[in-house]
Amino acid sequence: MISFESDYITGAHPKVLQKLIDTNLEVQSGYGSDAYCASAAEKIKKACGCEQADVQFLVGGTQTNAIVIATMLQEFEGVVCATTGHIHAHEAGAVEFNGHKILPLEHKEGKINADQVRTLLETFHKDESKEHMVFPGMVYISHPTEYGTLYSKAELTALSQVCTEYHIPLFMDGARLAYGLMSRQTDLTLQDIAQLCDVFYIGGTKAGALCGEAVVFTKGNTPAHFLNRIKKRGALLAKGRLLGAQFDALFTDNLFFEIGRHVIDMAEKLKAIVAQKGYRFHLDSPTNQQFVVLDKATVERLRQHIAFNIWEWLDDNHAVVRFATAWSTTQEDLDKLKELL
Amino acid sequence: MISFESDYITGAHPKVLQKLIDTNLEVQSGYGSDAYCASAAEKIKKACGCEQADVQFLVGGTQTNAIVIATMLQEFEGVVCATTGHIHAHEAGAVEFNGHKILPLEHKEGKINADQVRTLLETFHKDESKEHMVFPGMVYISHPTEYGTLYSKAELTALSQVCTEYHIPLFMDGARLAYGLMSRQTDLTLQDIAQLCDVFYIGGTKAGALCGEAVVFTKGNTPAHFLNRIKKRGALLAKGRLLGAQFDALFTDNLFFEIGRHVIDMAEKLKAIVAQKGYRFHLDSPTNQQFVVLDKATVERLRQHIAFNIWEWLDDNHAVVRFATAWSTTQEDLDKLKELL
Amino acid sequence: MISFESDYITGAHPKVLQKLIDTNLEVQSGYGSDAYCASAAEKIKKACGCEQADVQFLVGGTQTNAIVIATMLQEFEGVVCATTGHIHAHEAGAVEFNGHKILPLEHKEGKINADQVRTLLETFHKDESKEHMVFPGMVYISHPTEYGTLYSKAELTALSQVCTEYHIPLFMDGARLAYGLMSRQTDLTLQDIAQLCDVFYIGGTKAGALCGEAVVFTKGNTPAHFLNRIKKRGALLAKGRLLGAQFDALFTDNLFFEIGRHVIDMAEKLKAIVAQKGYRFHLDSPTNQQFVVLDKATVERLRQHIAFNIWEWLDDNHAVVRFATAWSTTQEDLDKLKELL
Amino acid sequence: MISFESDYITGAHPKVLQKLIDTNLEVQSGYGSDAYCASAAEKIKKACGCEQADVQFLVGGTQTNAIVIATMLQEFEGVVCATTGHIHAHEAGAVEFNGHKILPLEHKEGKINADQVRTLLETFHKDESKEHMVFPGMVYISHPTEYGTLYSKAELTALSQVCTEYHIPLFMDGARLAYGLMSRQTDLTLQDIAQLCDVFYIGGTKAGALCGEAVVFTKGNTPAHFLNRIKKRGALLAKGRLLGAQFDALFTDNLFFEIGRHVIDMAEKLKAIVAQKGYRFHLDSPTNQQFVVLDKATVERLRQHIAFNIWEWLDDNHAVVRFATAWSTTQEDLDKLKELL
Repeated sequence: MISFESDYITGAHPKVLQKLIDTNLEVQSGYGSDAYCASAAEKIKKACGCEQADVQFLVGGTQTNAIVIATMLQEFEGVVCATTGHIHAHEAGAVEFNGHKILPLEHKEGKINADQVRTLLETFHKDESKEHMVFPGMVYISHPTEYGTLYSKAELTALSQVCTEYHIPLFMDGARLAYGLMSRQTDLTLQDIAQLCDVFYIGGTKAGALCGEAVVFTKGNTPAHFLNRIKKRGALLAKGRLLGAQFDALFTDNLFFEIGRHVIDMAEKLKAIVAQKGYRFHLDSPTNQQFVVLDKATVERLRQHIAFNIWEWLDDNHAVVRFATAWSTTQEDLDKLKELL
Repeated sequence: MISFESDYITGAHPKVLQKLIDTNLEVQSGYGSDAYCASAAEKIKKACGCEQADVQFLVGGTQTNAIVIATMLQEFEGVVCATTGHIHAHEAGAVEFNGHKILPLEHKEGKINADQVRTLLETFHKDESKEHMVFPGMVYISHPTEYGTLYSKAELTALSQVCTEYHIPLFMDGARLAYGLMSRQTDLTLQDIAQLCDVFYIGGTKAGALCGEAVVFTKGNTPAHFLNRIKKRGALLAKGRLLGAQFDALFTDNLFFEIGRHVIDMAEKLKAIVAQKGYRFHLDSPTNQQFVVLDKATVERLRQHIAFNIWEWLDDNHAVVRFATAWSTTQEDLDKLKELL
Repeated sequence: MISFESDYITGAHPKVLQKLIDTNLEVQSGYGSDAYCASAAEKIKKACGCEQADVQFLVGGTQTNAIVIATMLQEFEGVVCATTGHIHAHEAGAVEFNGHKILPLEHKEGKINADQVRTLLETFHKDESKEHMVFPGMVYISHPTEYGTLYSKAELTALSQVCTEYHIPLFMDGARLAYGLMSRQTDLTLQDIAQLCDVFYIGGTKAGALCGEAVVFTKGNTPAHFLNRIKKRGALLAKGRLLGAQFDALFTDNLFFEIGRHVIDMAEKLKAIVAQKGYRFHLDSPTNQQFVVLDKATVERLRQHIAFNIWEWLDDNHAVVRFATAWSTTQEDLDKLKELL
Repeated sequence: MISFESDYITGAHPKVLQKLIDTNLEVQSGYGSDAYCASAAEKIKKACGCEQADVQFLVGGTQTNAIVIATMLQEFEGVVCATTGHIHAHEAGAVEFNGHKILPLEHKEGKINADQVRTLLETFHKDESKEHMVFPGMVYISHPTEYGTLYSKAELTALSQVCTEYHIPLFMDGARLAYGLMSRQTDLTLQDIAQLCDVFYIGGTKAGALCGEAVVFTKGNTPAHFLNRIKKRGALLAKGRLLGAQFDALFTDNLFFEIGRHVIDMAEKLKAIVAQKGYRFHLDSPTNQQFVVLDKATVERLRQHIAFNIWEWLDDNHAVVRFATAWSTTQEDLDKLKELL
């Protein structure tokens, strides 16, 4: 069955897999001290244009979010994010499991803005009983957001400024960063992001790796004894090479960006098909997740032939569904979709 | 450089890797609901001779230990283990990070016995102030132990009986179970273990997989909403197929046991070489970890040519070092070692 | 200075203090096993008309909320409450510190209703990805609410029904329950509450005790080894008699209800004064917390003579302030307030 | 029945109770911002001869231990203590509940020494895999210990030096500090303790208060936002005056020390009686807890008339029992004991 269910429905991009094959028999030391983690980190630092960056490899997105947040926050602090933020809605309470409260702000198409953050911070610090409350200690954004939307350079700069002013870090969840960077409608480069965020991660799982996220601490701000703290949380791989080799491949010869471009190309074609067939978009997404309004009958009919997610029901008869393109999406998949729509 | 540093120094066994290659382009749903996790679980249940078993896949050993312990214990309970237990000594306090105390017992060559456990339980339950103490709520053993030693069937049966009597689960850390099962000196089969333990895991990482541990709950005792609880701890892979496919390969055509046999064969040859060369063993290990006493000069000389671990210093001039064989250890490696010794 | 700042500005009601004096030299065993805890528990069970109730004494409100919630929830569950709920807004993230997420619902004058709860539960259980989310595992309400408002018997019954239907407990924070029970506008008795809630507590700290909250588990549902679990959280008093003796006094000769009546009488007089002087109420509160809209100049003038809390700023020039009456509030205090207004 | 069960069997010392009576009707602000907390803190600082000290009031011992340890440790650190340490043996795993491992050292009559600590620290920091282990981040001692024994000035100085050298704090649990300070066999003053420890607490509960422990941070090292962190743990009293007034009384006119002297006098007399009657001491305790070896028949006979604790059974027929004197112990109690022995 053709699937637009997500961007993690197939294995690794052939070049990523090839790297695992090529390096399989080499002896490498464990726990992230192998040559490939080192090499990948260097390549990522270079791609970020950020010499003082520190790159750490983790296995998955929820794990990365919880660890970055918990190790950067003080015990009395919580994290500000959009009500639609993945950490708030779909990570099984992993942040709270680590002892921290999420302080949600109303989203607009998945995004929050600097004015909201400033108001929250100002209000908090004027409150006479603030010592009885959770301190806003970090701002979390996802880019692309859970609705596929993107922050502009101006928006990210404004968020960065308010965070700097209040001395709290700005953290970008880049599980799908490849698609944000290669969107036809973005003005943000990887270098911009490295400059404006205090910490962010480059998603591998959803961009052609079997697993893996590369966390970039951009300001000499890696939490002390980070290895011990990820071990404590069960996130340290014995064969860390699995992560190193994959990211080494992704950041060799621009593979990461090429994967991003292909997936965006597929998404743009998919958008054109949907529009041409007269279906309505729930919102305008410039990345690889497309949210389309379908009636119930159409949902049921399509599901017999194509896999996709129901995002939410607008009413008893209309659902927002998500079509996601992936590194393995082909022109044939799109032709088939066109035919079915 | 030749390495006897550990059993996780190379990538995957070729047949495991081949399975990843063969299945790479298939569309599979995420989060462990793929066909390979299902297939691997069936094969493992069959190998265990335990139809009611439930098999869950996790990524690494520390993660598995912490999750099994924390999800099976009540809040007022702790876990009994040997002072040498991996969870007590080398997992960065992951059990305590989950809120539970470890109740250590003195070890003998890495093992604890049923009498010790019974005494601890009897003493605890007679204590007038036991409500102010941590309840012993589980027994953790590793098999092979951290010293490579093994429980006999009689010893495991006795431990199982005392646990059953006190209604607490017996948990076996099987990170290196392949080498326990294929040791020439064991009388315990996988079926025995499935019958005597309430929960155990079959280590993949140290037996030819890139990563992965298969947890077997043997008594219909999987903690409720286990998926949610591993997600909350950042242990749920989006591409769960990575674990499923590898264990499917390991449990096809007896590969897991063949890997075990090869590694044990290499270990027995290594033992013979060490003995023949006149070095002293720290203890008699029937599995793939061999602990040898070397003087400082020898340690330094060998380290220029071979990688291995210093386990502990007996005095200023003598160290216990560990040589571990792995799926990728070859006769050439042994010949080279012989020459150097 | 006269203070309407809160209901915990003075020590203990004279009869409560007298009980401490009378029993001071008696030898009593520790950790809640004294005669007064036993006696107070019996009296409370009788007052609740609930023979199967189990009464446990804790020290303060935030402690009680966190412990009841954390010991009754499963690890995969969170607690539903109003956005204004004390646990959500003013308890320093104590629930999240215990690992649980709060699932907030929009409030109306501090209250939530059964329809909101039902919609949340229905939506959750229909969600295809619910295993990746936090399960709604309890409903928390405060009565009186943080705005002094009250649930009617019909409203509480409806909440109780939806909780029963979904097999989750209904928990009432009764830090100011005395004022809810003695309000002139309530139709809920203590017996009703014991019947409709699965667990609730009777606040002592804000009703004439030096400290202390009496938790009532109404359905044989006290969490196992509760003493161990409160000890683990540092909430077990060595001299538990301090709590027992105070609640024994409060539930002797209707003292608790008499204190409630006095405080409500004072509040009603205060309301009349404020209304007569032409000030506007932010909302209509039938209990001892009165929320009044004052302009900035009036706030500043009054603060020179009377202590009270600024609740929130409506705009740059208008604040909602809170006047609270207490067991120690006198007619003279009210006369003085009248004069100043 | 006469009781030597503990030092928390009666209410408050009359002068402490009188202070609560005298201040009962005063209006005081909440959460520790009252005049009595301020006054008591000043008096304690003066008694400690430590102007830069910061004094914080908490409710009970387990709470205080867990909070001090958890707020002073980093996430990757654990706490070193004697195997007999109260935090290790009798606090229901409160330290582990806060996520931290206890690193126990063998005790000698309840004490540990500087050499043991130094060896542990040296060994740890030389270990090649220390990043996989829990860092020793604090040393916890109790004074008097759980066996009533005391550190000498030389011993405490040596412990302080090794802690300073390794940049980790030395924490003294002073739940029974009054009896350590007033022992006839001590050479340590309160000022010495304030100088040698980084943090310690002065126990109120076991020295004549209804509840309360005064934590003294001696080096400008109070954890940031301490109030928020104790609130988060349910340890912040609304009527903080309850703690302030009691400690204000204890540190007025040397009451704390007078209570200590009386209790020690009673203990010395008790020792003399026990010795004269020919019973054997389990060890030589210079404070208010006396550990005596009794045969089973004597235990059973005495228990009909006197309350005391069975500490441990040496064999089937011999127990170590504890007799503790308290502020309320009288000459009549001792006469009665003498008669019974």
